[in-house]
Amino acid sequence: MPAAAAVRSRRAKAAAADPARSALTPERWIEAATEVLVDHGIDSVRVDVLAQQLQVTRGSFYWHFRDREELLRRVLQAWRERATEQLTRRLERARDDPRDQVRDLISLPFRGRSAVRAARIELAIRAWARRDAMARAIVDEADAARIGYIAQVFSSLGFAIAEARARAFLLYSYEVAESLLCTPGSAAQRQERALLVERLLQLPLSK
Amino acid sequence: MPAAAAVRSRRAKAAAADPARSALTPERWIEAATEVLVDHGIDSVRVDVLAQQLQVTRGSFYWHFRDREELLRRVLQAWRERATEQLTRRLERARDDPRDQVRDLISLPFRGRSAVRAARIELAIRAWARRDAMARAIVDEADAARIGYIAQVFSSLGFAIAEARARAFLLYSYEVAESLLCTPGSAAQRQERALLVERLLQLPLSK
Repeated sequence: MPAAAAVRSRRAKAAAADPARSALTPERWIEAATEVLVDHGIDSVRVDVLAQQLQVTRGSFYWHFRDREELLRRVLQAWRERATEQLTRRLERARDDPRDQVRDLISLPFRGRSAVRAARIELAIRAWARRDAMARAIVDEADAARIGYIAQVFSSLGFAIAEARARAFLLYSYEVAESLLCTPGSAAQRQERALLVERLLQLPLSK
Repeated sequence: MPAAAAVRSRRAKAAAADPARSALTPERWIEAATEVLVDHGIDSVRVDVLAQQLQVTRGSFYWHFRDREELLRRVLQAWRERATEQLTRRLERARDDPRDQVRDLISLPFRGRSAVRAARIELAIRAWARRDAMARAIVDEADAARIGYIAQVFSSLGFAIAEARARAFLLYSYEVAESLLCTPGSAAQRQERALLVERLLQLPLSK
């Protein structure tokens, strides 16, 4: 029997023998792995830990994934897809007034619980990326794509490309810090700060 | 025998029985714990892991620390001391021209290998602070002290306090992002960006 067919056959048998367990989708494993990554760091993302948490056997993991490495790759892919999707929604608005786009970018860290959750996941992935080449490549790519998009917005405002990129970096820094730092101050302070950042980043440099 | 005397007596016996092991200073344990925190996350900072790494018995740990909790507290204290020391050195320069102080702050993330190491430790502590109140309190305190110092610099430049604080937050965001993001661009790009940030942050808002 060719290898692929053997795998299919093995999977079919596993599914027949254990329909409830194989009903766990790969997405459910990826989600659980992401939770453990956020709460305990990458070293704790282990098949035995996840199986216990999901109340299934270790074996049922291999129904969906070749090994832990594949699961980790899928965790990163899932994060990248969400990040790309977000960016695409922004790019679709690229014909809007660039001033509105700057305002929209600056308000990003204030979007409630989903922003907080996204920030937690991103921080955990950044910590992981400090010592893993695969994670690092994905994070670098996301940072570069986001800064590239913001630079386009500043470019539409009339800034030369090098300056647009530097302003984009500063705006992105602000977004990262607003979601990363624990003591951002009161809501009123944050609002006032957002307004200042919005105005300051669009000021031309005096010659 | 009172409890404290009993502890001293136990320690003295341990030292006599095992002079090589008790020669490990508490600082050596704290340093090893910090390394493991950076490389594997807080869950891996365990007495057995550290003892194995330092090639000593688990028991020798208790010669210096009551328990793991005390070690973790000391790791945070050590980080806070370094952060405070750095800040104090800056405050001592507070009579310098505030323009030079802004330049000095902006160049902080470019100070070579020690800056890279400090950034790795800080990122690991921030990830830990997302789910631990003790770590969070220390990180919050450090962020607030640093932003407070930067706000004083902007205040010396003549900005009103709320605006000085908002500018300080933006400058601090830039420092955090320069040391946190993996793809900061070429040295020339970073230099150009630093210059723009330096000028932009000191521009008055047009009325």
